[in-house]
Amino acid sequence: MQVGLIGLGKMGLNIGQNLLDHGHEVVAYDINLNTVEEIKKYGAKGTTDLLKLIHSLEKPRVLWMMIPHSNVDSVINEITPFLNSGDIVIEAGNSHYKESIRRYNQLKEFGISFMDAGTSGGVEGARHGACYMIGGDPEAWNIVKPVFEDTAVEKGYLYAGPIGSGHFLKMVHNGIEYGMMAAIGEGFELLEKSEFDYDYENVARVWNNGSVIRSWLMDLTEQAFSKDANLEEIKGIMHSSGEGKWTVETALELQTAAPIIAMSLMMRYRSTEEDTFTGKVVAALRNEFGGHSVEKMTTS
Amino acid sequence: MQVGLIGLGKMGLNIGQNLLDHGHEVVAYDINLNTVEEIKKYGAKGTTDLLKLIHSLEKPRVLWMMIPHSNVDSVINEITPFLNSGDIVIEAGNSHYKESIRRYNQLKEFGISFMDAGTSGGVEGARHGACYMIGGDPEAWNIVKPVFEDTAVEKGYLYAGPIGSGHFLKMVHNGIEYGMMAAIGEGFELLEKSEFDYDYENVARVWNNGSVIRSWLMDLTEQAFSKDANLEEIKGIMHSSGEGKWTVETALELQTAAPIIAMSLMMRYRSTEEDTFTGKVVAALRNEFGGHSVEKMTTS
Repeated sequence: MQVGLIGLGKMGLNIGQNLLDHGHEVVAYDINLNTVEEIKKYGAKGTTDLLKLIHSLEKPRVLWMMIPHSNVDSVINEITPFLNSGDIVIEAGNSHYKESIRRYNQLKEFGISFMDAGTSGGVEGARHGACYMIGGDPEAWNIVKPVFEDTAVEKGYLYAGPIGSGHFLKMVHNGIEYGMMAAIGEGFELLEKSEFDYDYENVARVWNNGSVIRSWLMDLTEQAFSKDANLEEIKGIMHSSGEGKWTVETALELQTAAPIIAMSLMMRYRSTEEDTFTGKVVAALRNEFGGHSVEKMTTS
Repeated sequence: MQVGLIGLGKMGLNIGQNLLDHGHEVVAYDINLNTVEEIKKYGAKGTTDLLKLIHSLEKPRVLWMMIPHSNVDSVINEITPFLNSGDIVIEAGNSHYKESIRRYNQLKEFGISFMDAGTSGGVEGARHGACYMIGGDPEAWNIVKPVFEDTAVEKGYLYAGPIGSGHFLKMVHNGIEYGMMAAIGEGFELLEKSEFDYDYENVARVWNNGSVIRSWLMDLTEQAFSKDANLEEIKGIMHSSGEGKWTVETALELQTAAPIIAMSLMMRYRSTEEDTFTGKVVAALRNEFGGHSVEKMTTS
Protein backbone atom coordinates (compact mmCIF):
# COMPACT_ATOMS: atom_id res chain seq x y z
CA MET A 1 0.00 0.00 0.00
CA GLN A 2 1.19 3.52 -0.69
CA VAL A 3 1.68 5.55 2.50
CA GLY A 4 2.38 9.25 2.72
CA LEU A 5 4.58 9.54 5.81
CA ILE A 6 4.64 12.95 7.46
CA GLY A 7 7.50 13.37 9.91
CA LEU A 8 10.86 11.62 9.94
CA GLY A 9 11.92 12.02 13.53
CA LYS A 10 13.24 9.00 15.46
CA MET A 11 9.84 7.30 15.33
CA GLY A 12 8.85 8.30 11.79
CA LEU A 13 12.12 7.26 10.22
CA ASN A 14 11.94 3.83 11.82
CA ILE A 15 8.27 3.30 10.98
CA GLY A 16 9.18 4.30 7.42
CA GLN A 17 11.90 1.65 7.20
CA ASN A 18 9.57 -0.86 8.79
CA LEU A 19 6.92 -0.09 6.15
CA LEU A 20 9.49 -0.46 3.37
CA ASP A 21 10.63 -3.81 4.81
CA HIS A 22 7.10 -5.05 4.37
CA GLY A 23 6.81 -4.02 0.76
CA HIS A 24 4.80 -0.86 1.26
CA GLU A 25 5.51 2.18 -0.85
CA VAL A 26 6.62 5.12 1.27
CA VAL A 27 6.48 8.71 0.15
CA ALA A 28 7.96 10.71 2.98
CA TYR A 29 7.97 14.34 4.02
CA ASP A 30 10.09 16.13 6.56
CA ILE A 31 11.24 19.71 6.91
CA ASN A 32 14.74 18.36 7.46
CA LEU A 33 16.45 17.44 4.17
CA ASN A 34 18.94 15.12 5.88
CA THR A 35 16.30 12.74 7.16
CA VAL A 36 14.53 12.83 3.79
CA GLU A 37 17.81 11.82 2.13
CA GLU A 38 18.25 9.15 4.81
CA ILE A 39 14.93 7.42 4.11
CA LYS A 40 15.49 7.65 0.37
CA LYS A 41 18.49 5.37 0.87
CA TYR A 42 16.10 2.66 2.04
CA GLY A 43 13.93 2.96 -1.05
CA ALA A 44 11.40 5.64 -0.16
CA LYS A 45 10.51 8.66 -2.19
CA GLY A 46 10.84 11.88 -0.26
CA THR A 47 10.35 15.62 -0.23
CA THR A 48 10.74 18.63 2.02
CA ASP A 49 7.65 20.17 0.42
CA LEU A 50 4.48 19.12 2.22
CA LEU A 51 2.10 20.02 -0.58
CA LYS A 52 4.27 18.23 -3.11
CA LEU A 53 3.85 15.14 -0.99
CA ILE A 54 0.07 15.53 -0.99
CA HIS A 55 -0.08 16.01 -4.73
CA SER A 56 2.18 13.06 -5.50
CA LEU A 57 0.03 10.50 -3.66
CA GLU A 58 -2.49 8.21 -5.29
CA LYS A 59 -6.12 8.74 -4.29
CA PRO A 60 -7.62 7.86 -1.96
CA ARG A 61 -4.57 8.95 0.01
CA VAL A 62 -3.32 7.28 3.15
CA LEU A 63 -1.38 9.76 5.26
CA TRP A 64 0.55 8.68 8.35
CA MET A 65 1.46 11.55 10.67
CA MET A 66 4.32 10.92 13.07
CA ILE A 67 5.06 14.38 14.44
CA PRO A 68 5.05 16.17 17.82
CA HIS A 69 1.45 16.71 18.91
CA SER A 70 1.97 20.48 19.03
CA ASN A 71 2.44 20.50 15.25
CA VAL A 72 -0.52 18.34 14.30
CA ASP A 73 -3.07 21.11 13.85
CA SER A 74 -0.84 23.29 11.70
CA VAL A 75 -0.04 20.39 9.37
CA ILE A 76 -3.71 19.41 9.17
CA ASN A 77 -4.69 22.98 8.40
CA GLU A 78 -2.04 23.23 5.72
CA ILE A 79 -3.00 20.03 3.91
CA THR A 80 -6.78 19.98 4.31
CA PRO A 81 -7.55 22.24 1.33
CA PHE A 82 -5.65 19.84 -0.94
CA LEU A 83 -7.11 16.57 0.35
CA ASN A 84 -10.09 14.80 -1.22
CA SER A 85 -13.10 13.03 0.11
CA GLY A 86 -12.13 9.45 0.89
CA ASP A 87 -8.60 10.27 1.98
CA ILE A 88 -7.48 8.80 5.30
CA VAL A 89 -5.30 10.69 7.77
CA ILE A 90 -3.73 8.63 10.57
CA GLU A 91 -2.33 10.52 13.52
CA ALA A 92 0.12 8.05 15.03
CA GLY A 93 1.70 10.45 17.50
CA ASN A 94 0.74 11.17 21.09
CA SER A 95 -2.21 13.56 20.91
CA HIS A 96 -4.84 13.97 23.59
CA TYR A 97 -7.83 11.83 22.65
CA LYS A 98 -10.17 14.82 22.78
CA GLU A 99 -8.01 16.60 20.23
CA SER A 100 -8.31 13.55 18.01
CA ILE A 101 -12.09 13.61 18.33
CA ARG A 102 -12.12 17.33 17.46
CA ARG A 103 -9.88 16.78 14.43
CA TYR A 104 -12.01 13.86 13.29
CA ASN A 105 -15.11 16.08 13.30
CA GLN A 106 -13.21 18.87 11.58
CA LEU A 107 -12.06 16.62 8.73
CA LYS A 108 -15.31 14.71 8.50
CA GLU A 109 -16.94 17.80 6.96
CA PHE A 110 -14.66 17.31 3.98
CA GLY A 111 -15.26 13.57 3.76
CA ILE A 112 -11.76 12.90 5.09
CA SER A 113 -11.46 10.06 7.58
CA PHE A 114 -9.25 10.85 10.55
CA MET A 115 -7.87 8.01 12.67
CA ASP A 116 -5.98 8.05 15.96
CA ALA A 117 -3.27 5.50 16.54
CA GLY A 118 -1.30 5.39 19.77
CA THR A 119 2.11 3.87 19.17
CA SER A 120 4.14 2.13 21.85
CA GLY A 121 7.36 0.16 22.02
CA GLY A 122 9.84 2.96 21.46
CA VAL A 123 12.22 3.40 18.57
CA GLU A 124 13.17 -0.27 18.50
CA GLY A 125 9.50 -1.20 18.26
CA ALA A 126 8.92 1.32 15.48
CA ARG A 127 11.72 -0.30 13.52
CA HIS A 128 11.05 -3.99 14.11
CA GLY A 129 7.50 -4.31 15.43
CA ALA A 130 5.46 -1.64 17.17
CA CYS A 131 2.37 -1.81 19.33
CA TYR A 132 -0.65 0.14 18.06
CA MET A 133 -3.91 1.20 19.70
CA ILE A 134 -6.19 2.46 16.95
CA GLY A 135 -9.49 4.32 16.77
CA GLY A 136 -11.57 5.63 13.86
CA ASP A 137 -14.19 4.66 11.32
CA PRO A 138 -14.42 0.89 10.72
CA GLU A 139 -14.48 1.51 6.93
CA ALA A 140 -11.18 3.36 7.11
CA TRP A 141 -9.78 0.69 9.41
CA ASN A 142 -10.52 -2.01 6.86
CA ILE A 143 -8.46 -0.11 4.30
CA VAL A 144 -5.42 0.64 6.45
CA LYS A 145 -5.38 -2.55 8.53
CA PRO A 146 -2.57 -4.20 6.49
CA VAL A 147 -0.22 -1.32 7.21
CA PHE A 148 -0.65 -1.77 10.97
CA GLU A 149 -0.64 -5.54 10.79
CA ASP A 150 2.65 -5.56 8.89
CA THR A 151 4.54 -3.06 11.02
CA ALA A 152 3.31 -4.29 14.40
CA VAL A 153 4.82 -7.03 16.47
CA GLU A 154 2.67 -10.18 16.38
CA LYS A 155 -0.71 -9.48 18.05
CA GLY A 156 0.58 -5.95 18.63
CA TYR A 157 -2.31 -3.95 17.21
CA LEU A 158 -5.86 -3.35 18.33
CA TYR A 159 -8.64 -1.58 16.53
CA ALA A 160 -10.31 -0.34 19.69
CA GLY A 161 -13.37 1.40 18.28
CA PRO A 162 -14.46 4.93 17.38
CA ILE A 163 -12.15 7.91 17.08
CA GLY A 164 -10.44 8.79 20.35
CA SER A 165 -10.38 5.21 21.62
CA GLY A 166 -6.85 4.72 20.27
CA HIS A 167 -5.26 7.70 21.92
CA PHE A 168 -7.29 7.17 25.10
CA LEU A 169 -5.86 3.66 25.33
CA LYS A 170 -2.34 4.93 24.70
CA MET A 171 -2.80 7.62 27.35
CA VAL A 172 -3.91 5.08 29.96
CA HIS A 173 -1.07 2.79 28.89
CA ASN A 174 1.35 5.58 29.72
CA GLY A 175 -0.39 6.22 33.03
CA ILE A 176 0.12 2.57 33.95
CA GLU A 177 3.71 2.90 32.80
CA TYR A 178 4.24 5.80 35.25
CA GLY A 179 2.99 3.67 38.14
CA MET A 180 5.02 0.61 37.17
CA MET A 181 8.18 2.65 36.75
CA ALA A 182 7.69 4.40 40.10
CA ALA A 183 7.20 1.06 41.86
CA ILE A 184 10.38 -0.32 40.30
CA GLY A 185 12.27 2.85 41.24
CA GLU A 186 11.11 2.72 44.85
CA GLY A 187 12.06 -0.95 45.08
CA PHE A 188 15.63 -0.26 44.02
CA GLU A 189 15.82 2.72 46.37
CA LEU A 190 14.93 0.39 49.25
CA LEU A 191 17.72 -1.95 48.17
CA GLU A 192 20.11 1.00 47.98
CA LYS A 193 19.22 2.17 51.49
CA SER A 194 19.29 -1.34 52.98
CA GLU A 195 22.06 -3.00 55.00
CA PHE A 196 22.80 -5.30 52.06
CA ASP A 197 25.16 -4.72 49.18
CA TYR A 198 23.26 -5.73 46.09
CA ASP A 199 24.50 -5.83 42.53
CA TYR A 200 21.56 -4.09 40.85
CA GLU A 201 22.17 -5.51 37.42
CA ASN A 202 22.06 -9.01 38.88
CA VAL A 203 18.94 -8.14 40.86
CA ALA A 204 17.18 -6.85 37.75
CA ARG A 205 18.27 -9.97 35.90
CA VAL A 206 16.91 -12.39 38.50
CA TRP A 207 13.68 -10.38 38.78
CA ASN A 208 13.37 -10.62 35.05
CA ASN A 209 13.67 -14.39 34.92
CA GLY A 210 10.79 -16.30 36.39
CA SER A 211 9.55 -13.71 38.90
CA VAL A 212 6.10 -12.15 39.08
CA ILE A 213 7.47 -8.69 38.15
CA ARG A 214 9.28 -9.80 35.01
CA SER A 215 8.57 -7.26 32.32
CA TRP A 216 10.07 -5.21 29.54
CA LEU A 217 10.65 -2.39 32.01
CA MET A 218 12.71 -4.77 34.19
CA ASP A 219 14.61 -5.71 31.04
CA LEU A 220 15.41 -2.04 30.50
CA THR A 221 16.35 -1.72 34.18
CA GLU A 222 18.89 -4.51 33.76
CA GLN A 223 20.20 -2.81 30.63
CA ALA A 224 20.57 0.54 32.43
CA PHE A 225 22.47 -1.00 35.36
CA SER A 226 24.71 -2.91 32.95
CA LYS A 227 25.87 0.45 31.59
CA ASP A 228 26.21 2.23 34.93
CA ALA A 229 26.23 -0.16 37.91
CA ASN A 230 24.90 2.36 40.44
CA LEU A 231 23.50 4.98 38.04
CA GLU A 232 26.09 7.40 39.35
CA GLU A 233 26.08 9.33 36.10
CA ILE A 234 22.36 10.09 36.14
CA LYS A 235 20.43 12.55 38.29
CA GLY A 236 17.13 11.36 39.70
CA ILE A 237 15.14 14.00 37.85
CA MET A 238 12.07 12.46 36.23
CA HIS A 239 10.70 14.55 33.42
CA SER A 240 7.32 13.82 31.91
CA SER A 241 5.87 14.50 28.51
CA GLY A 242 2.15 14.87 29.02
CA GLU A 243 0.29 11.58 28.94
CA GLY A 244 0.69 10.91 32.65
CA LYS A 245 -0.81 14.32 33.33
CA TRP A 246 -3.65 13.65 30.87
CA THR A 247 -4.35 10.35 32.59
CA VAL A 248 -4.67 12.04 35.97
CA GLU A 249 -6.78 14.85 34.49
CA THR A 250 -9.02 12.19 32.96
CA ALA A 251 -9.27 10.41 36.31
CA LEU A 252 -10.42 13.71 37.85
CA GLU A 253 -12.91 14.27 35.05
CA LEU A 254 -14.29 10.75 35.51
CA GLN A 255 -14.13 11.22 39.30
CA THR A 256 -12.20 8.00 39.54
CA ALA A 257 -9.67 7.17 42.24
CA ALA A 258 -6.30 6.57 40.60
CA PRO A 259 -3.95 7.42 43.48
CA ILE A 260 -1.00 5.32 42.29
CA ILE A 261 -0.87 6.97 38.88
CA ALA A 262 -1.50 10.43 40.39
CA MET A 263 1.22 9.94 42.99
CA SER A 264 3.67 8.73 40.35
CA LEU A 265 3.08 11.90 38.39
CA MET A 266 3.44 14.16 41.42
CA MET A 267 6.63 12.43 42.51
CA ARG A 268 7.96 13.23 39.03
CA TYR A 269 7.12 16.89 39.60
CA ARG A 270 8.77 16.72 43.02
CA SER A 271 11.92 15.32 41.44
CA THR A 272 12.32 18.35 39.22
CA GLU A 273 12.65 20.71 42.19
CA GLU A 274 15.79 20.94 44.25
CA ASP A 275 13.93 22.42 47.20
CA THR A 276 10.20 22.91 47.71
CA PHE A 277 8.02 25.68 49.05
CA THR A 278 5.94 22.96 50.74
CA GLY A 279 9.06 22.02 52.65
CA LYS A 280 9.75 25.62 53.66
CA VAL A 281 6.19 26.06 54.94
CA VAL A 282 6.19 22.81 56.92
CA ALA A 283 9.64 23.51 58.39
CA ALA A 284 8.51 27.02 59.36
CA LEU A 285 5.36 25.68 61.04
CA ARG A 286 7.30 23.07 63.03
CA ASN A 287 9.50 25.89 64.19
CA GLU A 288 6.54 28.12 65.07
CA PHE A 289 4.64 25.64 67.19
CA GLY A 290 7.38 23.43 68.54
CA GLY A 291 10.55 25.44 68.29
CA HIS A 292 11.99 22.70 66.09
CA SER A 293 15.12 23.89 64.34
CA VAL A 294 15.04 24.78 60.67
CA GLU A 295 17.84 24.49 58.15
CA LYS A 296 18.83 27.94 56.98
CA MET A 297 19.53 28.92 53.39
CA THR A 298 23.21 29.59 52.93
CA THR A 299 23.98 32.88 51.21
CA SER A 300 26.42 32.16 48.44
CA MET B 1 21.84 -34.28 45.47
CA GLN B 2 19.67 -35.59 48.28
CA VAL B 3 17.17 -33.01 49.53
CA GLY B 4 14.98 -33.30 52.59
CA LEU B 5 11.83 -31.43 51.62
CA ILE B 6 9.70 -30.14 54.47
CA GLY B 7 6.22 -29.12 53.40
CA LEU B 8 4.18 -30.39 50.47
CA GLY B 9 1.72 -27.60 49.97
CA LYS B 10 1.12 -26.19 46.47
CA MET B 11 4.66 -24.80 46.28
CA GLY B 12 6.45 -27.69 48.03
CA LEU B 13 4.82 -30.41 45.98
CA ASN B 14 5.74 -28.67 42.73
CA ILE B 15 9.31 -27.89 43.82
CA GLY B 16 9.57 -31.56 44.79
CA GLN B 17 8.51 -32.74 41.33
CA ASN B 18 10.84 -30.18 39.79
CA LEU B 19 13.76 -31.54 41.87
CA LEU B 20 12.89 -35.10 40.86
CA ASP B 21 12.76 -34.09 37.19
CA HIS B 22 16.35 -32.93 37.50
CA GLY B 23 17.61 -36.17 39.01
CA HIS B 24 17.73 -35.07 42.63
CA GLU B 25 16.75 -37.47 45.37
CA VAL B 26 13.78 -36.14 47.33
CA VAL B 27 12.87 -37.32 50.80
CA ALA B 28 9.70 -35.45 51.69
CA TYR B 29 7.78 -34.71 54.82
CA ASP B 30 4.30 -33.40 55.30
CA ILE B 31 1.75 -33.77 58.07
CA ASN B 32 -0.78 -34.65 55.36
CA LEU B 33 -0.49 -38.28 54.26
CA ASN B 34 -2.27 -37.61 50.93
CA THR B 35 0.38 -35.21 49.67
CA VAL B 36 3.12 -37.56 50.87
CA GLU B 37 1.51 -40.37 48.87
CA GLU B 38 1.19 -37.96 45.93
CA ILE B 39 4.89 -37.12 45.76
CA LYS B 40 5.84 -40.78 46.22
CA LYS B 41 4.12 -41.42 42.87
CA TYR B 42 6.72 -39.22 41.22
CA GLY B 43 9.62 -41.15 42.74
CA ALA B 44 10.25 -39.44 46.07
CA LYS B 45 10.52 -41.12 49.44
CA GLY B 46 8.14 -39.66 52.00
CA THR B 47 6.99 -39.67 55.58
CA THR B 48 4.54 -37.95 57.89
CA ASP B 49 7.06 -38.22 60.71
CA LEU B 50 9.39 -35.21 60.78
CA LEU B 51 12.09 -36.83 62.91
CA LYS B 52 12.05 -39.93 60.74
CA LEU B 53 12.84 -37.62 57.81
CA ILE B 54 15.78 -36.10 59.69
CA HIS B 55 17.20 -39.49 60.66
CA SER B 56 16.85 -40.93 57.17
CA LEU B 57 18.93 -38.23 55.45
CA GLU B 58 22.61 -38.53 54.59
CA LYS B 59 24.95 -36.13 56.40
CA PRO B 60 25.61 -33.35 55.89
CA ARG B 61 21.88 -32.90 55.44
CA VAL B 62 20.29 -30.45 53.02
CA LEU B 63 16.84 -29.49 54.25
CA TRP B 64 14.46 -27.40 52.13
CA MET B 65 11.61 -25.83 54.09
CA MET B 66 8.56 -24.79 52.07
CA ILE B 67 5.99 -24.06 54.74
CA PRO B 68 3.92 -21.08 55.96
CA HIS B 69 6.21 -18.62 57.75
CA SER B 70 4.18 -18.95 60.93
CA ASN B 71 5.29 -22.60 61.23
CA VAL B 72 8.98 -22.13 60.56
CA ASP B 73 10.10 -21.63 64.17
CA SER B 74 8.23 -24.62 65.53
CA VAL B 75 9.69 -26.89 62.84
CA ILE B 76 13.20 -25.52 63.44
CA ASN B 77 12.82 -26.01 67.19
CA GLU B 78 11.63 -29.55 66.69
CA ILE B 79 14.44 -30.64 64.38
CA THR B 80 17.41 -28.70 65.79
CA PRO B 81 18.31 -31.22 68.53
CA PHE B 82 18.63 -33.93 65.87
CA LEU B 83 20.67 -31.99 63.32
CA ASN B 84 24.47 -32.06 63.08
CA SER B 85 27.15 -29.51 62.50
CA GLY B 86 27.52 -28.98 58.75
CA ASP B 87 23.84 -29.49 57.98
CA ILE B 88 22.20 -26.87 55.79
CA VAL B 89 18.65 -25.63 56.34
CA ILE B 90 17.11 -23.61 53.48
CA GLU B 91 14.00 -21.62 54.28
CA ALA B 92 12.42 -21.11 50.87
CA GLY B 93 9.14 -19.66 52.13
CA ASN B 94 8.19 -16.05 52.73
CA SER B 95 9.71 -15.13 56.08
CA HIS B 96 10.62 -11.63 57.17
CA TYR B 97 14.32 -11.11 56.53
CA LYS B 98 14.96 -10.21 60.16
CA GLU B 99 13.47 -13.50 61.25
CA SER B 100 15.85 -15.24 58.86
CA ILE B 101 18.81 -13.39 60.38
CA ARG B 102 17.63 -14.39 63.87
CA ARG B 103 17.22 -18.04 62.86
CA TYR B 104 20.63 -18.02 61.20
CA ASN B 105 22.25 -16.88 64.44
CA GLN B 106 20.23 -19.36 66.45
CA LEU B 107 21.35 -22.31 64.29
CA LYS B 108 24.91 -21.07 63.88
CA GLU B 109 25.58 -21.97 67.52
CA PHE B 110 25.11 -25.59 66.53
CA GLY B 111 27.23 -25.32 63.40
CA ILE B 112 24.11 -25.52 61.24
CA SER B 113 24.04 -23.21 58.22
CA PHE B 114 20.71 -21.48 57.70
CA MET B 115 19.91 -19.96 54.31
CA ASP B 116 17.02 -17.75 53.19
CA ALA B 117 15.63 -18.18 49.71
CA GLY B 118 12.79 -16.05 48.42
CA THR B 119 10.86 -17.93 45.77
CA SER B 120 8.82 -16.22 43.05
CA GLY B 121 6.94 -17.29 39.95
CA GLY B 122 3.96 -18.98 41.58
CA VAL B 123 2.99 -22.63 41.40
CA GLU B 124 3.77 -22.87 37.69
CA GLY B 125 7.26 -21.52 38.34
CA ALA B 126 7.80 -23.95 41.21
CA ARG B 127 6.94 -26.79 38.86
CA HIS B 128 8.78 -25.77 35.71
CA GLY B 129 11.31 -23.10 36.65
CA ALA B 130 11.18 -20.83 39.67
CA CYS B 131 12.91 -17.56 40.50
CA TYR B 132 15.08 -17.61 43.64
CA MET B 133 16.69 -14.83 45.68
CA ILE B 134 19.13 -16.46 48.06
CA GLY B 135 21.12 -15.35 51.10
CA GLY B 136 23.43 -17.21 53.47
CA ASP B 137 27.01 -18.38 53.94
CA PRO B 138 28.98 -18.62 50.70
CA GLU B 139 30.29 -22.08 51.73
CA ALA B 140 26.74 -23.39 52.09
CA TRP B 141 25.79 -21.73 48.81
CA ASN B 142 28.53 -23.58 46.98
CA ILE B 143 27.07 -26.87 48.21
CA VAL B 144 23.41 -26.21 47.40
CA LYS B 145 23.86 -24.15 44.23
CA PRO B 146 23.07 -27.09 41.87
CA VAL B 147 19.67 -27.55 43.46
CA PHE B 148 18.70 -23.93 42.77
CA GLU B 149 20.33 -23.88 39.35
CA ASP B 150 18.41 -26.97 38.26
CA THR B 151 14.97 -25.95 39.51
CA ALA B 152 15.14 -22.29 38.47
CA VAL B 153 14.21 -20.90 35.12
CA GLU B 154 17.31 -19.92 33.14
CA LYS B 155 19.13 -17.04 34.91
CA GLY B 156 16.37 -17.24 37.54
CA TYR B 157 18.48 -17.46 40.69
CA LEU B 158 20.69 -15.01 42.49
CA TYR B 159 22.96 -15.60 45.43
CA ALA B 160 22.56 -12.09 46.81
CA GLY B 161 24.93 -12.20 49.79
CA PRO B 162 24.70 -12.78 53.55
CA ILE B 163 21.70 -14.17 55.37
CA GLY B 164 18.62 -11.96 55.07
CA SER B 165 19.55 -10.61 51.64
CA GLY B 166 17.40 -13.27 49.97
CA HIS B 167 14.19 -12.61 51.84
CA PHE B 168 14.81 -8.85 51.76
CA LEU B 169 15.00 -9.04 47.98
CA LYS B 170 11.86 -11.14 47.81
CA MET B 171 10.06 -8.69 50.10
CA VAL B 172 10.96 -5.71 47.92
CA HIS B 173 10.02 -7.73 44.83
CA ASN B 174 6.55 -8.13 46.32
CA GLY B 175 6.39 -4.43 47.17
CA ILE B 176 7.11 -3.60 43.53
CA GLU B 177 4.48 -6.15 42.55
CA TYR B 178 1.89 -4.31 44.67
CA GLY B 179 2.64 -1.04 42.87
CA MET B 180 2.63 -2.59 39.41
CA MET B 181 -0.64 -4.39 40.06
CA ALA B 182 -2.28 -1.24 41.43
CA ALA B 183 -1.20 0.75 38.36
CA ILE B 184 -2.61 -1.91 36.04
CA GLY B 185 -5.84 -2.01 38.04
CA GLU B 186 -6.28 1.76 37.94
CA GLY B 187 -5.64 1.79 34.20
CA PHE B 188 -8.42 -0.69 33.52
CA GLU B 189 -10.73 1.21 35.88
CA LEU B 190 -10.18 4.32 33.75
CA LEU B 191 -11.09 2.33 30.65
CA GLU B 192 -14.18 0.98 32.42
CA LYS B 193 -15.34 4.48 33.39
CA SER B 194 -14.55 5.99 29.99
CA GLU B 195 -16.91 6.79 27.15
CA PHE B 196 -15.39 3.93 25.11
CA ASP B 197 -16.42 0.33 25.06
CA TYR B 198 -13.22 -1.66 25.29
CA ASP B 199 -12.79 -5.40 25.15
CA TYR B 200 -10.44 -5.80 28.10
CA GLU B 201 -9.00 -9.10 27.00
CA ASN B 202 -8.03 -7.54 23.68
CA VAL B 203 -6.62 -4.49 25.45
CA ALA B 204 -4.47 -6.67 27.73
CA ARG B 205 -3.33 -8.62 24.68
CA VAL B 206 -2.25 -5.56 22.70
CA TRP B 207 -0.56 -4.08 25.80
CA ASN B 208 1.29 -7.35 26.16
CA ASN B 209 2.64 -7.36 22.63
CA GLY B 210 5.21 -4.72 21.85
CA SER B 211 4.15 -2.08 24.37
CA VAL B 212 6.26 -0.58 27.15
CA ILE B 213 4.08 -2.19 29.84
CA ARG B 214 4.29 -5.74 28.54
CA SER B 215 4.89 -8.02 31.46
CA TRP B 216 3.95 -11.30 33.05
CA LEU B 217 1.33 -9.43 35.09
CA MET B 218 -0.25 -8.19 31.84
CA ASP B 219 -0.16 -11.78 30.61
CA LEU B 220 -2.12 -12.81 33.70
CA THR B 221 -4.47 -9.87 33.15
CA GLU B 222 -5.25 -11.14 29.66
CA GLN B 223 -5.78 -14.62 31.08
CA ALA B 224 -8.17 -13.33 33.75
CA PHE B 225 -10.26 -11.35 31.23
CA SER B 226 -10.35 -14.37 28.91
CA LYS B 227 -12.15 -16.28 31.67
CA ASP B 228 -14.50 -13.48 32.73
CA ALA B 229 -14.69 -10.64 30.18
CA ASN B 230 -15.67 -7.93 32.68
CA LEU B 231 -14.64 -9.68 35.92
CA GLU B 232 -18.27 -9.68 36.92
CA GLU B 233 -17.79 -12.75 39.09
CA ILE B 234 -15.06 -11.22 41.25
CA LYS B 235 -15.36 -8.61 44.00
CA GLY B 236 -12.72 -5.88 44.06
CA ILE B 237 -11.45 -6.91 47.47
CA MET B 238 -7.65 -7.03 47.48
CA HIS B 239 -6.28 -9.13 50.28
CA SER B 240 -2.60 -9.08 51.14
CA SER B 241 -0.35 -11.62 52.76
CA GLY B 242 2.34 -9.63 54.51
CA GLU B 243 5.25 -8.74 52.26
CA GLY B 244 3.73 -5.48 51.04
CA LYS B 245 3.27 -4.44 54.66
CA TRP B 246 6.83 -5.47 55.49
CA THR B 247 8.11 -3.43 52.54
CA VAL B 248 6.33 -0.32 53.79
CA GLU B 249 7.48 -0.95 57.38
CA THR B 250 11.02 -1.27 56.04
CA ALA B 251 10.64 1.99 54.10
CA LEU B 252 9.61 3.69 57.35
CA GLU B 253 12.53 2.14 59.21
CA LEU B 254 14.93 3.31 56.50
CA GLN B 255 13.11 6.68 56.39
CA THR B 256 12.75 6.26 52.65
CA ALA B 257 9.94 7.73 50.55
CA ALA B 258 8.08 4.87 48.87
CA PRO B 259 4.66 6.46 48.35
CA ILE B 260 3.58 4.27 45.44
CA ILE B 261 4.16 1.03 47.32
CA ALA B 262 2.65 2.48 50.51
CA MET B 263 -0.42 3.75 48.66
CA SER B 264 -0.88 0.39 46.91
CA LEU B 265 -0.92 -1.33 50.29
CA MET B 266 -3.34 1.17 51.81
CA MET B 267 -5.69 0.93 48.82
CA ARG B 268 -5.72 -2.82 49.46
CA TYR B 269 -6.76 -2.17 53.05
CA ARG B 270 -9.40 0.28 51.82
CA SER B 271 -10.79 -2.38 49.49
CA THR B 272 -11.47 -4.74 52.37
CA GLU B 273 -13.89 -2.30 54.01
CA GLU B 274 -17.38 -1.75 52.72
CA ASP B 275 -17.65 1.62 54.45
CA THR B 276 -15.00 3.60 56.31
CA PHE B 277 -14.90 5.56 59.51
CA THR B 278 -12.75 8.10 57.66
CA GLY B 279 -15.69 8.61 55.34
CA LYS B 280 -18.15 9.03 58.19
CA VAL B 281 -15.91 11.64 59.85
CA VAL B 282 -15.38 13.63 56.65
CA ALA B 283 -19.08 13.49 55.74
CA ALA B 284 -19.97 14.66 59.26
CA LEU B 285 -17.51 17.54 59.08
CA ARG B 286 -18.82 18.70 55.68
CA ASN B 287 -22.25 18.67 57.23
CA GLU B 288 -21.12 20.58 60.32
CA PHE B 289 -19.38 23.45 58.54
CA GLY B 290 -21.26 23.67 55.28
CA GLY B 291 -24.58 22.00 55.87
CA HIS B 292 -23.77 19.55 53.10
CA SER B 293 -26.11 16.59 53.17
CA VAL B 294 -24.92 13.24 54.47
CA GLU B 295 -26.08 9.80 53.39
CA LYS B 296 -27.85 8.15 56.29
CA MET B 297 -27.41 4.55 57.35
CA THR B 298 -30.55 2.59 56.60
CA THR B 299 -31.86 0.57 59.51
CA SER B 300 -32.49 -2.92 58.25
